[in-house]
Amino acid sequence: MAPQQPINVGILGATGTVGQRFIELLAPHPYFKIHALGASHRSAGKEYAQVTKWKLAIPIPESVRKMIVQPCEVGPFKECGIVFSGLDQDVAGDIEAAFRAAELVVFSNAKNYRRDPMVPLMVPLVNPEHFAVVRYQQSQLGLKKGYILCNANCSTTAIVVPLKALEVKFGPLKRVMATTLQAISGAGYPGVSSLDILDNVVPYIGGEEEKIEWETSKILGGLLPNDTGFDLHAKNPLKVSAACNRVPVIDGHLACVSVEFAAENKPSIDEVRAAFAGYTTEAQTLGCPSAPPQAIVLHDAPDRPQPRLDRDLHAGACVSVGRVRECNLFDVKFVCLLDNVRLGAATSSVMNAELAVEKGFL
Amino acid sequence: MAPQQPINVGILGATGTVGQRFIELLAPHPYFKIHALGASHRSAGKEYAQVTKWKLAIPIPESVRKMIVQPCEVGPFKECGIVFSGLDQDVAGDIEAAFRAAELVVFSNAKNYRRDPMVPLMVPLVNPEHFAVVRYQQSQLGLKKGYILCNANCSTTAIVVPLKALEVKFGPLKRVMATTLQAISGAGYPGVSSLDILDNVVPYIGGEEEKIEWETSKILGGLLPNDTGFDLHAKNPLKVSAACNRVPVIDGHLACVSVEFAAENKPSIDEVRAAFAGYTTEAQTLGCPSAPPQAIVLHDAPDRPQPRLDRDLHAGACVSVGRVRECNLFDVKFVCLLDNVRLGAATSSVMNAELAVEKGFL
Amino acid sequence: MAPQQPINVGILGATGTVGQRFIELLAPHPYFKIHALGASHRSAGKEYAQVTKWKLAIPIPESVRKMIVQPCEVGPFKECGIVFSGLDQDVAGDIEAAFRAAELVVFSNAKNYRRDPMVPLMVPLVNPEHFAVVRYQQSQLGLKKGYILCNANCSTTAIVVPLKALEVKFGPLKRVMATTLQAISGAGYPGVSSLDILDNVVPYIGGEEEKIEWETSKILGGLLPNDTGFDLHAKNPLKVSAACNRVPVIDGHLACVSVEFAAENKPSIDEVRAAFAGYTTEAQTLGCPSAPPQAIVLHDAPDRPQPRLDRDLHAGACVSVGRVRECNLFDVKFVCLLDNVRLGAATSSVMNAELAVEKGFL
Amino acid sequence: MAPQQPINVGILGATGTVGQRFIELLAPHPYFKIHALGASHRSAGKEYAQVTKWKLAIPIPESVRKMIVQPCEVGPFKECGIVFSGLDQDVAGDIEAAFRAAELVVFSNAKNYRRDPMVPLMVPLVNPEHFAVVRYQQSQLGLKKGYILCNANCSTTAIVVPLKALEVKFGPLKRVMATTLQAISGAGYPGVSSLDILDNVVPYIGGEEEKIEWETSKILGGLLPNDTGFDLHAKNPLKVSAACNRVPVIDGHLACVSVEFAAENKPSIDEVRAAFAGYTTEAQTLGCPSAPPQAIVLHDAPDRPQPRLDRDLHAGACVSVGRVRECNLFDVKFVCLLDNVRLGAATSSVMNAELAVEKGFL
Repeated sequence: MAPQQPINVGILGATGTVGQRFIELLAPHPYFKIHALGASHRSAGKEYAQVTKWKLAIPIPESVRKMIVQPCEVGPFKECGIVFSGLDQDVAGDIEAAFRAAELVVFSNAKNYRRDPMVPLMVPLVNPEHFAVVRYQQSQLGLKKGYILCNANCSTTAIVVPLKALEVKFGPLKRVMATTLQAISGAGYPGVSSLDILDNVVPYIGGEEEKIEWETSKILGGLLPNDTGFDLHAKNPLKVSAACNRVPVIDGHLACVSVEFAAENKPSIDEVRAAFAGYTTEAQTLGCPSAPPQAIVLHDAPDRPQPRLDRDLHAGACVSVGRVRECNLFDVKFVCLLDNVRLGAATSSVMNAELAVEKGFL
Repeated sequence: MAPQQPINVGILGATGTVGQRFIELLAPHPYFKIHALGASHRSAGKEYAQVTKWKLAIPIPESVRKMIVQPCEVGPFKECGIVFSGLDQDVAGDIEAAFRAAELVVFSNAKNYRRDPMVPLMVPLVNPEHFAVVRYQQSQLGLKKGYILCNANCSTTAIVVPLKALEVKFGPLKRVMATTLQAISGAGYPGVSSLDILDNVVPYIGGEEEKIEWETSKILGGLLPNDTGFDLHAKNPLKVSAACNRVPVIDGHLACVSVEFAAENKPSIDEVRAAFAGYTTEAQTLGCPSAPPQAIVLHDAPDRPQPRLDRDLHAGACVSVGRVRECNLFDVKFVCLLDNVRLGAATSSVMNAELAVEKGFL
Repeated sequence: MAPQQPINVGILGATGTVGQRFIELLAPHPYFKIHALGASHRSAGKEYAQVTKWKLAIPIPESVRKMIVQPCEVGPFKECGIVFSGLDQDVAGDIEAAFRAAELVVFSNAKNYRRDPMVPLMVPLVNPEHFAVVRYQQSQLGLKKGYILCNANCSTTAIVVPLKALEVKFGPLKRVMATTLQAISGAGYPGVSSLDILDNVVPYIGGEEEKIEWETSKILGGLLPNDTGFDLHAKNPLKVSAACNRVPVIDGHLACVSVEFAAENKPSIDEVRAAFAGYTTEAQTLGCPSAPPQAIVLHDAPDRPQPRLDRDLHAGACVSVGRVRECNLFDVKFVCLLDNVRLGAATSSVMNAELAVEKGFL
Repeated sequence: MAPQQPINVGILGATGTVGQRFIELLAPHPYFKIHALGASHRSAGKEYAQVTKWKLAIPIPESVRKMIVQPCEVGPFKECGIVFSGLDQDVAGDIEAAFRAAELVVFSNAKNYRRDPMVPLMVPLVNPEHFAVVRYQQSQLGLKKGYILCNANCSTTAIVVPLKALEVKFGPLKRVMATTLQAISGAGYPGVSSLDILDNVVPYIGGEEEKIEWETSKILGGLLPNDTGFDLHAKNPLKVSAACNRVPVIDGHLACVSVEFAAENKPSIDEVRAAFAGYTTEAQTLGCPSAPPQAIVLHDAPDRPQPRLDRDLHAGACVSVGRVRECNLFDVKFVCLLDNVRLGAATSSVMNAELAVEKGFL
């Protein structure tokens, strides 16, 4: 349910590519009102449109064009109910900590606190129950209002949504093998040199495989009893192995996934398909404005999903799944796709914030 | 050792894309002399250069330009010691059978006889010992000289070379998971529409996954006792699961592979790397002209092999392997790459023919 | 002004790529109601969704899914106020003539009647005054209601809109040199093989240069006195030279154009820019629903327009112009861009039909 | 004729992309021996292979791997008969001047001295007679041996070779309109971001159009009487207008060119074709090792040359020309193509050095 009056929000790293996506999503948002934009000292004090190399298809929203950019310090963000962070990892750590210490709520797309055992790593279509750990985080740090909550890496998000749909229906998973084909936009701008990727594939993305492996474990099975944080280590029986490739695609991460269930009793392919098609999430039932009508779009055509044809489904807020079939080695294999610049990044963070509103975590 | 005088060879399907590759390889070949070119009745009777839409970078070899194209009938090929077949699958079955029945030796790139339990499916860098089955084939059919021998599908070839290198050193394999990123040239010409593949990936290639799965089994473990053909079914303990994708790359099939060894005693990553780097094949030791100096080129850089940078190594006659590392689920994972239009097709067939010369199977 | 009740329209070639675009535009159209769909005899008698390989991003409109496809004969289209033709050129000639002879109004995207001296070749943002020739066409053929009207080739459309803007302000043009960089979608589906265009440019599109040269002349200067048809020959003083290239771009034809004015008195670059930015057309002033808010979007950034970034402006119904600067040889040069599958094809035909409604030519 | 013993040569900017090309060409060169490699102070003192991110398909030549990189100072290059410069423009000016002042001969790929009225701008297949200006340069600067000689910009080179072939046969040209489609490698590495060029064209390359316009004039008509340098201004009657585009092609700049001859008497298209096909240059007749067997390869197929298919002709040392046809506005139009990383860069500089050997300018 929409708040009675719009909640002031701030955006850190507002001139960067993730920051621009935050602005695109938040400027017309029914719950939120952009109150402060933060960027480097070089940009601070100037109008947003002057200091930003805007890269999106839509023009800069009018309400933002002439806002004066602030330094990434607590002062100008004091009135913000939520601060979204699209900061680069080399500065995000200190700044986000300082904001939290000042009792601000930080929804971060940066990776610095993803491994923190007190910080939820939240995919809004997967684990909103992890909000409970926020209370533990606050108690540990002696805070009343402030906390940090991270969204997951884009390729993790693509995979963990269909995995969760399976877990909900068929119980814990045992093994997951995933090979990704990731879009160039995942590397930011300028990111991947055209000389490296035209007529080519690069079978390596630094740190990406490890992220998929441990993030999936934290999200699906890492919660400690009584919501007292996360175990990042061996307790989780789910094992994941990932292989990551960069391909010459603008937007849309695709993954080929094989899954083994923990239970002896294996579902049929039809039951698996039904689990995907019927997967419903709290973000949808609570009426979050950014939640897609279907969390998972199940494709019947044998050659779908495809990045260029399917990345825009439901405004990039869902995951596409197709080619559900038996695996010779595990129980089932399938292909999944997500829009890495939307549900894989800023859209997740915004939907997490909507969940915070709906679930009373502000 | 080179034959005393060049062996006359014929090429069926000589105007097609595979046929053109055969001509490129055979025109300057030290063992062979192009004696007859076969194509459809529409082309028969005309000069080769007149009826061919030549697509290769080199010009049509002078010795071939004015050769008169023959129909694909036994008559004009009677004097050929070997007949290479680049025929389409819809006609290859009957024509190749008729040639064999006429006591001709057929090395085929078509898929029609790949599953035949009497026909070797030969990757020259992997299983030349399967030539022995040719004698069984002849005895069963009452032939003295004629036989059919097939090379494998291009994506199978990419995977089975490194798998064989592992098997040689560490014994039988138990499970192999492979996800391919395949080049557009694998679909022939005109093949893949540019509207389907630019800024896109197609996560489906009809029949390809099944081919990788059963071809790998036939090649690595399917030989029956006493060389009496192949068992295509359950006996082979090696299980393979494949997922195939088409990517916007001109040439070069890449695969991400995870392997589990059958033995309890697992090799270290360094031992696996040494097995790849040291893999030597009969084609090399016998001095086959098309054999590469290294069957497998092992890459150290973390982001190699890459299709555009590595597909031309050793004239496309080797397989590149890189990113050898531990797998969370199986024992080892790696990336491999082959030039699908060379070792993945005509080069394999020609190297098989060189092996036939060296091993006395003509 | 919208008609009092929706006008029934038919679509010939409804299952093809242009036909699908017509359906996308007409299904939600405020003036028109899809009444009949025509296709080959193979498809006739079956439901539209069953016989169509739908290629658009949106799903098939519900109102069309279950419509029974008709043969391309006059009978089922008798009640149509307008018939849109997306037929292939090999059948369009006879069918469109038969429909006209039956007093039906045909708006055709096919090229068969483009050179006909009685048929207007209409770009809706350029020459709606050519509707007057429709009366001449009817009188010559003894018809009361029926006529044929064609839209122009996509690359001609890209160029002729900015040329018209210049002509309106600065009088007749004398010489135009145009080099195009055209998208693959211009060749239809499957169209251009990926092997021909990936990492490549093809500096040739059969017949395209001639089309640009004579179509531009017909549209800008070919009208005979008293609206008695068109002179396709020498009388027009405007000379055009075109060079056409296919580039690896999905949608969006770009052209580099140099223009020499006929008048001695040359406008400044600023005046030329103002002429582009201020260009207003009858389609806009009459309120045609498909008319863009700006016929020409003038870009200031030195590196715009670009196909991927600018093809979607105003739903693909405008032309983008940028890089307006002096030419060392002629008077001015610039870059222009249009969405070839929208304003370059079906959108033009539909906007022409809207003009027919507004101007009383039904 | 080869020098009696190899001439020692140095390479400035040896670790960069142009420097790597120089090494590729010079390591196996019959006339030259790599004696010294210069790079930034950061690299100086270390082995070449250690400090270089090598990007070429061939491995680093053995003779170069362990050479100790020198600073770009005169000392270590004193024994060099020729110094090739692949320096970046921000440092090339001062360093090249210092080397010349120390009586060293500098063949530069940098742009700093291209506009210098005493420095020849030499395309080896076009204007070797401009070597004469080197004597003037030396006399003006009081030098005995040292001089600077530049090769031209890559896109200029593509155009000026066929223009020269026309000028030789048909006399001076009056007007040239050229639109280029340029490869991404022309921007160096990392150069063009993949997000800017995939599924896109960028109709702008900073400074490139001006370079084509004035470089063509200097090369074809700028020589002052008595070889006393070059007139960069109005005297040359040849006028050029260029429009430059970046396209998603790895290597190979293509240009669409229209030409008007100064003479009243116009050659036929067949005569123009013969002029291209028969064009012979001094580099060839003198037997320069890098000179191609044909300076211009004339293509007959209506859709050639194409970058991917034709850029490798004659090891990238020739220019391809095709589609020779009448122009509606000027006299003739055609398409030309060159390999921008070879004849468009290092290969030109090396061939210029070979000409210096043959013509006695060392």
